[in-house]
Amino acid sequence: MRVQLLSTGDELVLGQIHDTNAAFLARELSDLGLRVDQIRAVGDDTDRLIRVLRETAEAADLVVVTGGLGPTRDDITARAAADAFSVPLTPDRQAMSAMAAFFEKRGMELSLADEKQAVLPAGSRVLENDSGTAPGFSITYRSCTFFFLPGVPGEMRHMFNRQVRPVIMEQFDIPEQMTVESVSVFGLGESQTGERLEGFEDRFGPMRLSFRAAFPVVEVKIICYQEKKAPDISGRIAAARRWVISRLEGKVFSETGLSLPEELGRVLNRSGLTLAVAESCTGGLISHWITNVAGSSAYYLAGATTYANEAKTDLIGVREKTLIRFGAVDGHTALEMAQGIRKRSHADVAVSTTGIAGPGGGSPEKPVGTVCMAAVGPGFETVKRYHLDVGDRHRNKALFAAAALNLLIREIRRRYPDPA
Amino acid sequence: MRVQLLSTGDELVLGQIHDTNAAFLARELSDLGLRVDQIRAVGDDTDRLIRVLRETAEAADLVVVTGGLGPTRDDITARAAADAFSVPLTPDRQAMSAMAAFFEKRGMELSLADEKQAVLPAGSRVLENDSGTAPGFSITYRSCTFFFLPGVPGEMRHMFNRQVRPVIMEQFDIPEQMTVESVSVFGLGESQTGERLEGFEDRFGPMRLSFRAAFPVVEVKIICYQEKKAPDISGRIAAARRWVISRLEGKVFSETGLSLPEELGRVLNRSGLTLAVAESCTGGLISHWITNVAGSSAYYLAGATTYANEAKTDLIGVREKTLIRFGAVDGHTALEMAQGIRKRSHADVAVSTTGIAGPGGGSPEKPVGTVCMAAVGPGFETVKRYHLDVGDRHRNKALFAAAALNLLIREIRRRYPDPA
Repeated sequence: MRVQLLSTGDELVLGQIHDTNAAFLARELSDLGLRVDQIRAVGDDTDRLIRVLRETAEAADLVVVTGGLGPTRDDITARAAADAFSVPLTPDRQAMSAMAAFFEKRGMELSLADEKQAVLPAGSRVLENDSGTAPGFSITYRSCTFFFLPGVPGEMRHMFNRQVRPVIMEQFDIPEQMTVESVSVFGLGESQTGERLEGFEDRFGPMRLSFRAAFPVVEVKIICYQEKKAPDISGRIAAARRWVISRLEGKVFSETGLSLPEELGRVLNRSGLTLAVAESCTGGLISHWITNVAGSSAYYLAGATTYANEAKTDLIGVREKTLIRFGAVDGHTALEMAQGIRKRSHADVAVSTTGIAGPGGGSPEKPVGTVCMAAVGPGFETVKRYHLDVGDRHRNKALFAAAALNLLIREIRRRYPDPA
Repeated sequence: MRVQLLSTGDELVLGQIHDTNAAFLARELSDLGLRVDQIRAVGDDTDRLIRVLRETAEAADLVVVTGGLGPTRDDITARAAADAFSVPLTPDRQAMSAMAAFFEKRGMELSLADEKQAVLPAGSRVLENDSGTAPGFSITYRSCTFFFLPGVPGEMRHMFNRQVRPVIMEQFDIPEQMTVESVSVFGLGESQTGERLEGFEDRFGPMRLSFRAAFPVVEVKIICYQEKKAPDISGRIAAARRWVISRLEGKVFSETGLSLPEELGRVLNRSGLTLAVAESCTGGLISHWITNVAGSSAYYLAGATTYANEAKTDLIGVREKTLIRFGAVDGHTALEMAQGIRKRSHADVAVSTTGIAGPGGGSPEKPVGTVCMAAVGPGFETVKRYHLDVGDRHRNKALFAAAALNLLIREIRRRYPDPA
């Protein structure tokens, strides 16, 4: 089964955007057990697109093409596909009426340019677009099946999930995907995570593992395909999950694949606790991550980003003598920061960071990468000092912020355990 | 001049990472006036890589390949290149001694696996790697010049800038790039920016424009090539720049291509002012952006992320009766937030945001996307209310944060103008 992806658009070959569509499709197809042989991107050039469409038809059994289906002059994909596959372009009645309905619903008029979007290569099957105007289509040329989808990421993903994945599974006889279990890991890189889980397929095949790194977190997915009427294997899946978690020895912070701020939100919601944050070196990133989660206002009360020493004393009550005696980057200061924001915001739990993200500000005793953090709450006050330096200010901030969330999640969970 | 890019690595065809290397190279090459015909990505599969290398040699005059030059088993690029171009692999003396020096400097020992990295296709010219161990190389096959670079983005960029760009300019007779002027735009999308600047090339050719969108900001570059001994055209370049800025009518926030937090840092450093931030709906993002700029501790004192009403009153002194009378999302509240953090942190200027990023929390009077913000400082107190909704919580946060920085930059610049 030979698979290729083809993305179209000048913005790709000019380097103005990253090809996130190809990455999404590659991931989804590999989760189906299909392996992408090659990803290509070409600009809005009809002759070149025709040539590449013919090349991929020779080299692959399945090709997913994105982009160039809209109403403007540089949307050339349908025309190029018709030429490449030597079929005429014809107005598609189903696509036309779906588009007319889309416009009517919004009280807009259909222009000639819009109508162009419903003119498809003869022999195509239309793929309706619920979230935009440009329909997609699929067509078979020689022994290769092509799916053409719009380039707008949201529309493309929606159409892939709803209309392309089921057809691929049917047509290429892929067993129904019964289960994807996911765990999230902090404190191990992707390759270290992979090494710890070596031997999984010998033990639990045909289940398999898939890894996604979103620095500094790694998500491990356990993927299991199964025929519709096969015997129940939920016991085997649970065993695989336990094995994965035990091999990762305490580095798993979410047993359901959540991100750090999502997992923190879950344990806070479950335990009814409210939260406040005091940041120095992470500069607001922890609060930003927490408030990226919709619904976080249920538990997140306040954050203070106290960069200057005076802000540490005046805004959250760190004692001047602590700063003089130990300095800003110290466990004592971290503890008073967490205590201070907790008290002033009346939150149940609080977390703090103070450290040196770099590139400047390091010293022999406290080099770049030194970070102190504290997690406080009912019955606990935990202080940690780490040295975490990946050589980049932005990534250091992310690493410090992740370590602080990870610490707080653990401290809360220890006192408010998940029901067994 | 036919140009292709080829990225290698399983992580690309599995969709685990976006191909940022290809986007970088496409941008750099298009700034040199070269147009990339096709971008390809293949996994770590020697046969497939050999086939694709031969295809690109047929189809292009210049190919830049990234990835697969390291010491591990899946680093197969040098071997595949030797096979594709029918030359033997031989140890390169220059590469070997550079690598030995790299290890010696760090007090590490060279392993056999490391030495493999200095074994290159015969006839290659080595490209030294200052920042890592794997050297790159260039080689010509038939009429096509190949550059092979490591896949680690930092190393790749550094090597491209130092060792590949000059060779390309020399070999393909590209006039020296005299000037790239850059301006940064907020408040116009990329296509609106392009429309406003239509007619540039008729007026100022052979100068040309290049656009880079980093939501919600657009960077416009004016690119001008010139032979070494051509007459001085700095006057024409300055005229082009003035034309661009005037056509963008007040939407330019940096005339030197800086980001919003960088430009804010510049005007603060220049005017000697210190800064504090009070955020509600942006949830820490403004402080995070500001502290991403190395050196921001020179002007940034403190931020407060006051999500709960009590945090607004207790941490930064918003009056309870203001909250009761006007609500949290209101200009009066925004103003008291900015005044409050300014006072408590003793900063010279402050900015605040309060609004509804969505998806929940909207009402008929204050729908999702409503945001109020204030900028205060010596002699100014400015309050704005906007409706900015792009249908996504994360992007709404970014839009609100950018609007607030933009407002503050303008207010400061009005009182502390740049020297003419």
